Amino acid sequence: MLETCAQHPKMNPAAAPNPEWESFYRKDITEKLPTFSRDGRLCDCLFAQQFDRDLLDRLCRLADHMRDITKTRHGDDFLRGLLANKRAMLFFSQPSTRTFLSFMSACQILGIRVLEIRDLKTSSQVKGESIEDTIRTFAAYVDLIIMRHHTPGFVEKASWVLQTGHRPVSVINAGSGADQHPTQALLDIYTLNRYLPGGLDGKHLVMVGDLKRGRTVRSLSYLMKNYQGVRLTFVAPEAFRMEPDILAFLNRHQIPHRETDDLASTLKEADAVYMTRIQDEHDAGGESQRVDYSPFHIGTAQMAKLPKHAVLMHPLPRREEIHPDVDKDPRAVYWRQERNGMWIRTALIAYLFRMEKAVLGHHSEG
Amino acid sequence: MLETCAQHPKMNPAAAPNPEWESFYRKDITEKLPTFSRDGRLCDCLFAQQFDRDLLDRLCRLADHMRDITKTRHGDDFLRGLLANKRAMLFFSQPSTRTFLSFMSACQILGIRVLEIRDLKTSSQVKGESIEDTIRTFAAYVDLIIMRHHTPGFVEKASWVLQTGHRPVSVINAGSGADQHPTQALLDIYTLNRYLPGGLDGKHLVMVGDLKRGRTVRSLSYLMKNYQGVRLTFVAPEAFRMEPDILAFLNRHQIPHRETDDLASTLKEADAVYMTRIQDEHDAGGESQRVDYSPFHIGTAQMAKLPKHAVLMHPLPRREEIHPDVDKDPRAVYWRQERNGMWIRTALIAYLFRMEKAVLGHHSEG
Amino acid sequence: MLETCAQHPKMNPAAAPNPEWESFYRKDITEKLPTFSRDGRLCDCLFAQQFDRDLLDRLCRLADHMRDITKTRHGDDFLRGLLANKRAMLFFSQPSTRTFLSFMSACQILGIRVLEIRDLKTSSQVKGESIEDTIRTFAAYVDLIIMRHHTPGFVEKASWVLQTGHRPVSVINAGSGADQHPTQALLDIYTLNRYLPGGLDGKHLVMVGDLKRGRTVRSLSYLMKNYQGVRLTFVAPEAFRMEPDILAFLNRHQIPHRETDDLASTLKEADAVYMTRIQDEHDAGGESQRVDYSPFHIGTAQMAKLPKHAVLMHPLPRREEIHPDVDKDPRAVYWRQERNGMWIRTALIAYLFRMEKAVLGHHSEG
Repeated sequence: MLETCAQHPKMNPAAAPNPEWESFYRKDITEKLPTFSRDGRLCDCLFAQQFDRDLLDRLCRLADHMRDITKTRHGDDFLRGLLANKRAMLFFSQPSTRTFLSFMSACQILGIRVLEIRDLKTSSQVKGESIEDTIRTFAAYVDLIIMRHHTPGFVEKASWVLQTGHRPVSVINAGSGADQHPTQALLDIYTLNRYLPGGLDGKHLVMVGDLKRGRTVRSLSYLMKNYQGVRLTFVAPEAFRMEPDILAFLNRHQIPHRETDDLASTLKEADAVYMTRIQDEHDAGGESQRVDYSPFHIGTAQMAKLPKHAVLMHPLPRREEIHPDVDKDPRAVYWRQERNGMWIRTALIAYLFRMEKAVLGHHSEG
Repeated sequence: MLETCAQHPKMNPAAAPNPEWESFYRKDITEKLPTFSRDGRLCDCLFAQQFDRDLLDRLCRLADHMRDITKTRHGDDFLRGLLANKRAMLFFSQPSTRTFLSFMSACQILGIRVLEIRDLKTSSQVKGESIEDTIRTFAAYVDLIIMRHHTPGFVEKASWVLQTGHRPVSVINAGSGADQHPTQALLDIYTLNRYLPGGLDGKHLVMVGDLKRGRTVRSLSYLMKNYQGVRLTFVAPEAFRMEPDILAFLNRHQIPHRETDDLASTLKEADAVYMTRIQDEHDAGGESQRVDYSPFHIGTAQMAKLPKHAVLMHPLPRREEIHPDVDKDPRAVYWRQERNGMWIRTALIAYLFRMEKAVLGHHSEG
Repeated sequence: MLETCAQHPKMNPAAAPNPEWESFYRKDITEKLPTFSRDGRLCDCLFAQQFDRDLLDRLCRLADHMRDITKTRHGDDFLRGLLANKRAMLFFSQPSTRTFLSFMSACQILGIRVLEIRDLKTSSQVKGESIEDTIRTFAAYVDLIIMRHHTPGFVEKASWVLQTGHRPVSVINAGSGADQHPTQALLDIYTLNRYLPGGLDGKHLVMVGDLKRGRTVRSLSYLMKNYQGVRLTFVAPEAFRMEPDILAFLNRHQIPHRETDDLASTLKEADAVYMTRIQDEHDAGGESQRVDYSPFHIGTAQMAKLPKHAVLMHPLPRREEIHPDVDKDPRAVYWRQERNGMWIRTALIAYLFRMEKAVLGHHSEG
């Protein structure tokens, strides 16, 4: 039941009814996954549920190796030639500087030429074209579509149209409604593995803030089933506690977790603290105004309680929940986390184009 | 008289009067054409009337050869290096996903770097600059301008300014008001030649739908004079019959044609069926609402009547005039037609930069 | 006092107060400059005051050499490979076709891949992010930020945030409020040096028009202190005379200058005439309407009075202050001036990335 988080109660995104798609869309996610894979490899990256431990480890290793390669001009040139014969479309119906720049940079690192669509008004849909036809048109010109859309299920539908059609082009979900943002989850995993001594296994992860509506903390929680001995603490105001579906999922996978609203006492036992801002853009009627968010902030006083080896993360953008003075603390890794997003997305794209071996076989000369 | 279709009755596009241009603009098109050619070659691509049989054949051959070349990575790299020292501007004042992506891709295939202007508000015209000066500024930075503009004659004026000025830069018309869209006509010709056995000569072409206001069917009809033994049937509702100027042109060039509103009986004799959507964006007062467009639709039942060797085309975007179930029929070539647009535009650009020999001299290694 | 022109009386651009920045912003410009330099070289290009004679000469020479190199395809390819491993962001909050295209072209000439942000609505600031954090995010993905912003001091702040932060990325000011547009001054200097026989030293420069509010004529006046024996004449209507701060600066540096409203008598003694349009976008209450600007226009009659060796410049866009008939006169260099802007910006970027030696060491073959 939980894995069907893509089964959003909202309306189907298509303007015209498409019963074949509607029936697919209502399926359990485990039934859907094979549609987006081939020969045991992902063709599309749509859901955090598509990642298993092996794939997560491979992508992290690939990202690390790419960073290493680009330390020399020779290696940088090598990577930039790797996919110079490919074209990608960045289709963003929603404002998102960070994710947009990150994917754009990832394409540029690999030499992929990019076609951008950021303004829906420039689309042919004004001439009454169906979504299916618009997607097919995009696919006519490119080898990869990186898509962010405000409508839940839209990115999944685009991918389904292409996988069941005549020209299968890979799709990466760069954020789809409130439900999925799988590459954000990827970059969080990459960051945790990169900065926690020994990686994620056996660590205590503390998630703080608006856990009810934060897409990132939800996806990250799902992915914990891939790691051994992880323990979670959810620190949230009463109104924004983690949703029952996630708690049920954790119970089912026997992942220890507890809920509290006391940040201070939790910090000293944390290996990683994952802060989130209040998601007031999802307010139905000003509920964010009625919550005292101040106990869910971190400043230098709170940092003093955090162990030396621990890391402080944030998906950004931040507001007041982390004081800028904390930026100088070496445990504050959110700016590096942001850059990690660029690298793990570069790795994901290289993987989708089956370039792992080529990359790992290249060694920087020095 | 007919060839002066560029002599649009609407106002001159320039903000400030320019008598020299106005006098040029009013000329017969046959008098204008030399301005946009040099040494028997096109410098600019503005009107469908600029294409003769020889040029059409050469561009089709060039497009075919390029597709062949890019089947290998080596050939793809070769093409991408061809014009890597050139820069093009894509100036689109009107929304057009399809044409924009197609030209952008064509530039990328040839390695041309692109500067985009899609939002008129970002232009200096807000500071009171004349159109002539704006065009000259564009030309300062690029070697090619690909331009779509809602004002009839605007693209022609841009080209005229540059050809009569100090820095002649090639201009390609990517759609100018309701009158001209020459590369659409090119891609239609390319598609017909590519999929009809033996090419276009001697074939029966059926055009269906809103023929009165469809720019593509008008341009395609003009170009029929370049082919031997072609026969045309126009299938349209009474209100949207092909305009008398085109019929007069066909009579003058002795191209057999007839008009009907009976699609069913025409299909079995067709070599190519060219469908069009209703152009209701040009409605003066809801006339599209009063027409029963349903007899001008194609579904699987209609396809059963079409000969096996025939092709079904559509400039896209489509609405209901072709049922999506038809997409799977191998005679439905509209999605391939769209991709042909990218290749014939690539060929056109290579031609304008005099790269035909270099391309044709390259052979893919296998 | 004069050098503190960046100390704009308007409010600090940051949404949230940042006392450290505010104290920096109020400093005298001579105190600020070291922040934006390292090892005697500019890291950022923010103010016209950063250029001394040596740097101006070096940039002009570099631009000349680059133009020479690109005359061959081999040289063009060399330059395009030079910084192919770098990425730049073009962040333009204000419409500016000319400057945007010029910088974009400069990046393309050097092979730099570009990320564009032209629409502020696509920025994360809608989610309540501070300016400091937005800038840091930009810096995460690129090696250079080229920024135009309507708020005075904004570009300087961006640069300050990065220079005092963890990831110093170069910033180029592409126009900041009404106060600074240093690369415009650079291209003016380059144009004067390029077309005046023997360069700028000892020449008589006549500036005409709205001198009070023209950013370009102000910057250019500052830079005159770097040249020997230059004489200035300011020709303006009473309401738009050059500001006293500039006149005081010229006095302090013993640069001879006079003010007049009589253009005709000045022309015959001019080596260079620098025309400007009326800056009515800065009108407080229609003051431009009350000025007779017609005596500050140039047509063919005025050109007859100008010496043969002299040049006529304009930063463009122009309105009526230069008649289009003048364009054909070889002394009218404003269209070449525009293209010079592209080349001097290319030189500046190559300089910032320490590529001078590599460029000057390359000689075109053939």
